[in-house]
Amino acid sequence: MNSVDEAYLGYKGRIAGILKNMGLDVGDRIKIARGDRVFEGVLMPREKLYGYRPIIVIKLDNGYNVGVRIDETARIELVAKKKPRIFTKPKIVQRSSLPHVTFLSTGGTIVSKVDYETGAVKPALTVEELLEWVPEIGETAYIDAKVILNVFSEDLTPGHWALIAEKAYEEFKKGKAGVVIAHGTDTMGYTAAAIAFAIRRKPGPIVFVGAQRSSDRPSTDSAFNLKSAFLVAAQADIAESVVVMHGETGDTYALVHRGVKVRKMHTSRRDAFQSINDLPIARVFPDEKKIEIIGRVLHRRNKDEDPLLMNKFDDKVALIKFYPGMHPDIFEHLIDDGYHGIVVEGTGLGHIANRLIPVLEKARKEGIPVVITSQCLFGRIDLYVYSTGRRLIEAGVIPGSDMLPETAYVKLSWILGSHTTDLEKVRKLMLENFEGEINPRLTVNLYPRWII
Amino acid sequence: MNSVDEAYLGYKGRIAGILKNMGLDVGDRIKIARGDRVFEGVLMPREKLYGYRPIIVIKLDNGYNVGVRIDETARIELVAKKKPRIFTKPKIVQRSSLPHVTFLSTGGTIVSKVDYETGAVKPALTVEELLEWVPEIGETAYIDAKVILNVFSEDLTPGHWALIAEKAYEEFKKGKAGVVIAHGTDTMGYTAAAIAFAIRRKPGPIVFVGAQRSSDRPSTDSAFNLKSAFLVAAQADIAESVVVMHGETGDTYALVHRGVKVRKMHTSRRDAFQSINDLPIARVFPDEKKIEIIGRVLHRRNKDEDPLLMNKFDDKVALIKFYPGMHPDIFEHLIDDGYHGIVVEGTGLGHIANRLIPVLEKARKEGIPVVITSQCLFGRIDLYVYSTGRRLIEAGVIPGSDMLPETAYVKLSWILGSHTTDLEKVRKLMLENFEGEINPRLTVNLYPRWII
Repeated sequence: MNSVDEAYLGYKGRIAGILKNMGLDVGDRIKIARGDRVFEGVLMPREKLYGYRPIIVIKLDNGYNVGVRIDETARIELVAKKKPRIFTKPKIVQRSSLPHVTFLSTGGTIVSKVDYETGAVKPALTVEELLEWVPEIGETAYIDAKVILNVFSEDLTPGHWALIAEKAYEEFKKGKAGVVIAHGTDTMGYTAAAIAFAIRRKPGPIVFVGAQRSSDRPSTDSAFNLKSAFLVAAQADIAESVVVMHGETGDTYALVHRGVKVRKMHTSRRDAFQSINDLPIARVFPDEKKIEIIGRVLHRRNKDEDPLLMNKFDDKVALIKFYPGMHPDIFEHLIDDGYHGIVVEGTGLGHIANRLIPVLEKARKEGIPVVITSQCLFGRIDLYVYSTGRRLIEAGVIPGSDMLPETAYVKLSWILGSHTTDLEKVRKLMLENFEGEINPRLTVNLYPRWII
Repeated sequence: MNSVDEAYLGYKGRIAGILKNMGLDVGDRIKIARGDRVFEGVLMPREKLYGYRPIIVIKLDNGYNVGVRIDETARIELVAKKKPRIFTKPKIVQRSSLPHVTFLSTGGTIVSKVDYETGAVKPALTVEELLEWVPEIGETAYIDAKVILNVFSEDLTPGHWALIAEKAYEEFKKGKAGVVIAHGTDTMGYTAAAIAFAIRRKPGPIVFVGAQRSSDRPSTDSAFNLKSAFLVAAQADIAESVVVMHGETGDTYALVHRGVKVRKMHTSRRDAFQSINDLPIARVFPDEKKIEIIGRVLHRRNKDEDPLLMNKFDDKVALIKFYPGMHPDIFEHLIDDGYHGIVVEGTGLGHIANRLIPVLEKARKEGIPVVITSQCLFGRIDLYVYSTGRRLIEAGVIPGSDMLPETAYVKLSWILGSHTTDLEKVRKLMLENFEGEINPRLTVNLYPRWII
């Protein structure tokens, strides 16, 4: 057998040689016999990083990809060449009488749809691709679609928040009823909080939507979440920055979470997003086109509202988690390196080791605001209960109330970027409730039940 | 009116002068009339920090403390001097036939009991004080009590973990059936994980217990938690390091959480502690003296087990939370400052910004192990799903599976301190399941329900 040095369809070495010699292409139907087992499916491309492994990846008819080990006994056979695609473009008629919604794509799993011919995952980014994939959204909204970014959500920075805010703002200035923003789930909560702050006087909803399972998996949540998000953007009487994602494991309802109060709480579940210290604003039943308000609505839709863009974020702000045995050097470094603000995730009611209080006091004396939040996530900071808290107050630390550490970080970055760097003004604005990021009343039902 | 410069009973200035001139003491019953209102109760001492405020604090008969503002119209009157205490020591007879349990006190709200005469909160640290306060524990165990530390839990360090492990180990070597450790709630999860690792081959349970509400409040959870903890230490067929705290808002049951899987999830609720990615091991009904196993028991009680102390912790380990806009300088600093290990709280399945991967690779090249966990808390790390994860694998990052970030931090500190600093051995040991810190099977019921 020959082998090729360069990659072929992502495969390398011996496997690349076999595939090239047989003239196989991605999308061809092949059969691999090894020992007494036979695997049949569609040839898939290989991730280059693993291309050197002696494996061929095929998509089985049940939708799953498998890697078949190619040893000396393996026999590969072409079943059918990939059919040349005879493309009859479906006629998509949009109804302009429906609310006009713009779909802004920033990247993430949500914008990946399956090419059912090859089984490969490709982005769905145009109006035609979206409506071909999830036709129901055309019954809810008149859609425009724009790609504004294409990055993994873990790579987003405060500079990207500014861009996303500007693009959403422009759509409102054009009179759009709502905006849907496709976003990777990893940092969606941070960005949803950032946009909540960066667009003042929102005329309608800004709806962040993502997918926990990519669209080549049977359990994908992409279409369900998209239907729900467009319904909220077009029809919900809410003018806030929200996250719309699956509400439970089934396909019954999605939840509308306030952007400043939401957090990704599970690595992989479809209902990973949860409101913390707040009820979700609404429940959405996309197939019945029903939106049921279950929480607090702080801003109602008002198309005469003139939005204001305040989208400068300071990118020299740190979010630091306290842990036992933490040394002051981490804070010393932030001061020396000219950081402009620090949010600390303390323990319990908002504590850190007493030995670290002097360095936080030093930060304040150098004009760096320090905000304390809790790694408990649930409940509210209270610095008046124990002496450590009272020492933190004396040191000038700003209490974060019941704000999520992530939201306090975004808010501090926004206040330093768009408002002021004056320490006393920063304190005043951090304690001000802009977007419901502080819930004045934490009721007993806001804590989940662990034992079911 | 005279005033005194120095504090009197914690009061300062004008108020100190009034109280001193009247010859009042803490514990005296007084009446304060102001306008048409009259307040009567027991005079309380004042926190020095707030002593200058024109307020006198009294404990009302309903148990609550109130601060009464003393303006020019206020009239203060002595109702009755504090009664000299005629102490008839209750005869406490312990039954040595019961399982022998040692109570080790490290500090925290739990060891504060109310002096019902003065209303002041004082520590309960001796066997007599404990049994006088919560007589029921004498029906469960034959008790010994020792004060090993008196620090706020936010001030504990890995050095304190070593001490606590040693003291608990010594009790097992003496043949004790179990150990109860009174601990502040703020960092109890961290310490419970540390002791889980530091004592190998535990013959019986090590039970951490704390209180969310101090014992001068009607809603105190101290006595309930203590009864539950002693019951577990004396009778539960579990030989692990566990946390025993209220299971719900009422006084019906406590939960036994595995120390390596537990987290304080609320700043103030009595049921703040929750098992993450694991069921609690058991439910405890202290008044019925009933223990119901509801989860996995990994080690059963065995009094012939010969415990092994491995209590060295490396205190140059950092726990760093990733956030959007994070700069590499924080990691650069840890490398420059000679840190020995780093645990990162990534997003989602275990991601960080791609721009930070080179500095983590640099850390590994300098011999510093880097472990990745998820700030989602629930679910498991999977670095094979997205390219960012695969790049992290290539960079030599150690995946933290479903370990809590806090537990991964404690474990890395223990492995570096008690086992090895060899990078490949550290990796192997981090992936080894010592104490159930990795749950091989995450079932669907391990995720709490938010909407009730």
